[in-house]
Amino acid sequence: MTEEETGPDVPIAAGEDRPDWETESDIDGEPSVGDTLRFSKPVSEADVERFALASGDTNPLHLDEASAAGTRFGGRIVHGGLIAGIISAALARLPGTVVYLEQDLTFRSPVRIGETVTAELEVVDDLSEAKYRLRTVARTDGDAAVEGTATVLIEDA
Amino acid sequence: MTEEETGPDVPIAAGEDRPDWETESDIDGEPSVGDTLRFSKPVSEADVERFALASGDTNPLHLDEASAAGTRFGGRIVHGGLIAGIISAALARLPGTVVYLEQDLTFRSPVRIGETVTAELEVVDDLSEAKYRLRTVARTDGDAAVEGTATVLIEDA
Repeated sequence: MTEEETGPDVPIAAGEDRPDWETESDIDGEPSVGDTLRFSKPVSEADVERFALASGDTNPLHLDEASAAGTRFGGRIVHGGLIAGIISAALARLPGTVVYLEQDLTFRSPVRIGETVTAELEVVDDLSEAKYRLRTVARTDGDAAVEGTATVLIEDA
Repeated sequence: MTEEETGPDVPIAAGEDRPDWETESDIDGEPSVGDTLRFSKPVSEADVERFALASGDTNPLHLDEASAAGTRFGGRIVHGGLIAGIISAALARLPGTVVYLEQDLTFRSPVRIGETVTAELEVVDDLSEAKYRLRTVARTDGDAAVEGTATVLIEDA
């Protein structure tokens, strides 16, 4: 992989979407309980390497096929933190400036490199003062990979 | 092993540390309650772009100085999910194969691009069957930026 593919030489703009990223939302303006948003993207080999470099998480489970083959997963899996990042990407697509306050995560099933992850949000509580609680699920082909709850503050953009 | 199996030429190897990453640990073998581990790395502009590309989180708060200047933060901040990733990087440095089961996170204060983040772990419960609960804090210069609790399964490597 060249520096161009991984590094700062692939600039990405605020609010940018790549051709294989998709967002669906029924939220228009201020969120209400029951509103939903879905964001999906494929997770590539390059994405796993980018996450490893950015975070420092060089767990062999994610980077070394031979070593990962000997684990309960039988091969490499995507970092749980990267799946969680796709949930944050969905939250970032809510209208306004989204500030993360809390997130809890349960890691339920592994995601393989090359799979497409869909992060689904549902607004479950309006906590007032522009704070909202959302149910967050990241799945591949119907399987819930990561589930949890997020609390965010949404300010006018 | 074919190229398909190994992926593209990897810029980072399993278990690799970069020169500006540091780990300190008093854990030797099986973890015990009270054991601690610290992992630190600087967060660069390139790291923020890598996380944005890998996750799809193109929130302007992280990528657009002009737009971030108008928020409560007065300028760009590092993705909360990337700080959480540095916590996962610390967990990955526990001895054995570390599998993420649960993580909860409270985002307390912003981290600026260029700051060094230190993730500190303390084993707080031995849950038996190779499961452990750890207190997790990520800080810069003494300020707790992200706090929470992780549950991991640790198998023999």
